[in-house]
Amino acid sequence: MRFVKGHGTENDFVILPDPDGELELPATVVAAMCDRRAGLGADGVLHVMRTKLSPEVADQAGEAEWFMDYRNTDGGMAEMCGNGIRVFARYLVDTGLAGAGEFGVATRAGVKRVRLAESGDVSVEMGRPRVLGRSHTTVAGREYEGLHIDMGNPHLACVIGDPVVQLDLSHQPAFDPEVFPGGVNIELLNPVGPRRVVMRVFERGSGETRSCGTGAVASAVAAAELAGETTGTWAVDVPGGTLTVTLDEHTSYLAGPAVLVASGELIL
Amino acid sequence: MRFVKGHGTENDFVILPDPDGELELPATVVAAMCDRRAGLGADGVLHVMRTKLSPEVADQAGEAEWFMDYRNTDGGMAEMCGNGIRVFARYLVDTGLAGAGEFGVATRAGVKRVRLAESGDVSVEMGRPRVLGRSHTTVAGREYEGLHIDMGNPHLACVIGDPVVQLDLSHQPAFDPEVFPGGVNIELLNPVGPRRVVMRVFERGSGETRSCGTGAVASAVAAAELAGETTGTWAVDVPGGTLTVTLDEHTSYLAGPAVLVASGELIL
Repeated sequence: MRFVKGHGTENDFVILPDPDGELELPATVVAAMCDRRAGLGADGVLHVMRTKLSPEVADQAGEAEWFMDYRNTDGGMAEMCGNGIRVFARYLVDTGLAGAGEFGVATRAGVKRVRLAESGDVSVEMGRPRVLGRSHTTVAGREYEGLHIDMGNPHLACVIGDPVVQLDLSHQPAFDPEVFPGGVNIELLNPVGPRRVVMRVFERGSGETRSCGTGAVASAVAAAELAGETTGTWAVDVPGGTLTVTLDEHTSYLAGPAVLVASGELIL
Repeated sequence: MRFVKGHGTENDFVILPDPDGELELPATVVAAMCDRRAGLGADGVLHVMRTKLSPEVADQAGEAEWFMDYRNTDGGMAEMCGNGIRVFARYLVDTGLAGAGEFGVATRAGVKRVRLAESGDVSVEMGRPRVLGRSHTTVAGREYEGLHIDMGNPHLACVIGDPVVQLDLSHQPAFDPEVFPGGVNIELLNPVGPRRVVMRVFERGSGETRSCGTGAVASAVAAAELAGETTGTWAVDVPGGTLTVTLDEHTSYLAGPAVLVASGELIL
């Protein structure tokens, strides 16, 4: 089985080219690939198929030639991944499956527009963040308040006074289970300049990660609210690099580096 | 640059075939390869060179055609790695660079004899463990005593009454810095049957790992001492699989699975 490995701000992915949808991908195989010691290691798998050959999304074929069939590390199917789709777009352009510039990618959450900038950055439209109120979290004994934001998945984005670099995120921060019955992704952030924040994130089900696309957008929304703004462009420094989030009245965009690292064959 | 990825009880390695010693491997390149998000990800790099072309070990060329130039994840050179050399041997045999059976591999710690069994297991002679006395460690508030064993690197192997599966090894266990001025690898183990132990290990400089070859040998020595024995064969269950350690009057052997997972090209 052919593969390519790539990452976007250190969210990393195994890309499986399969234009004609011939691969069988049972959950056990995906999980074995994603295993960081016994497999290749990744945060997820980007299975590349022609949209028109994929019954789940064939209705998107008019707007998007390629379908990102995203799989979590446990092998389960997922709808979307902001850093994943940016790496997916990099792969399509670098292998000639898509031209540079702007194009659509089919996902289980509908067609997403991606764009490759001349700088090498890849951006994706992430939709409109929905602010649902305020809530709080406790990290290593200290309580912080933040914004409850729905990005398709739940976030609690907290602008805090303590330096985020000093936080102990080795354990699950406490949160209000009545507000977040299915768990929540928790972002802690410090403003560090005009429209610039440093963010760390504790992802639901994963623990602290080096980057999180929806979390970066949620963080920009929380930073904007504190500044009394609703639109504009924010730089979000995460442990794995820097993402750029643009908010307008109708939607949001996530931009940043997306890099291919290796290609080869799996020995099965 | 061509690579192969493999693992032995989930200690994983990037193998770089370079028979004629043409590769430049500065520490920054090795570190970038070993990065688990931005690179391929591994516990170390096994650089494969002809012994006679490697000035460091050319004197071993009569006994070993191939030199395992081992690099740590930070790019620094290391002498030996018990699981690494088992994967190295698997690579040599699977690619036809060595015949099956027993042969020597050159290392910075001298020639090591490896052997491929028909079962698929690979064994390596690990030398004679030196028992230097007793010492103690504190894990999450509980103190344990164990054997101080030198395997070329320092170990404290503790047979304990608490179930090792319940230990919190997310932080550095305390140890006596007068006994271990350069740090120590700490094994916690439970006997679970005749000549069988379950082991967890906190490696110096790495934290808890899924396996440790020298640690498995040290654990077998500690279990043997408790049983009033000095020779024999022990099964050591680690989180990444099962290793078999054989002790005789003069030396020790480490055996277990060694698997190749993928091969390809790095995109540099």
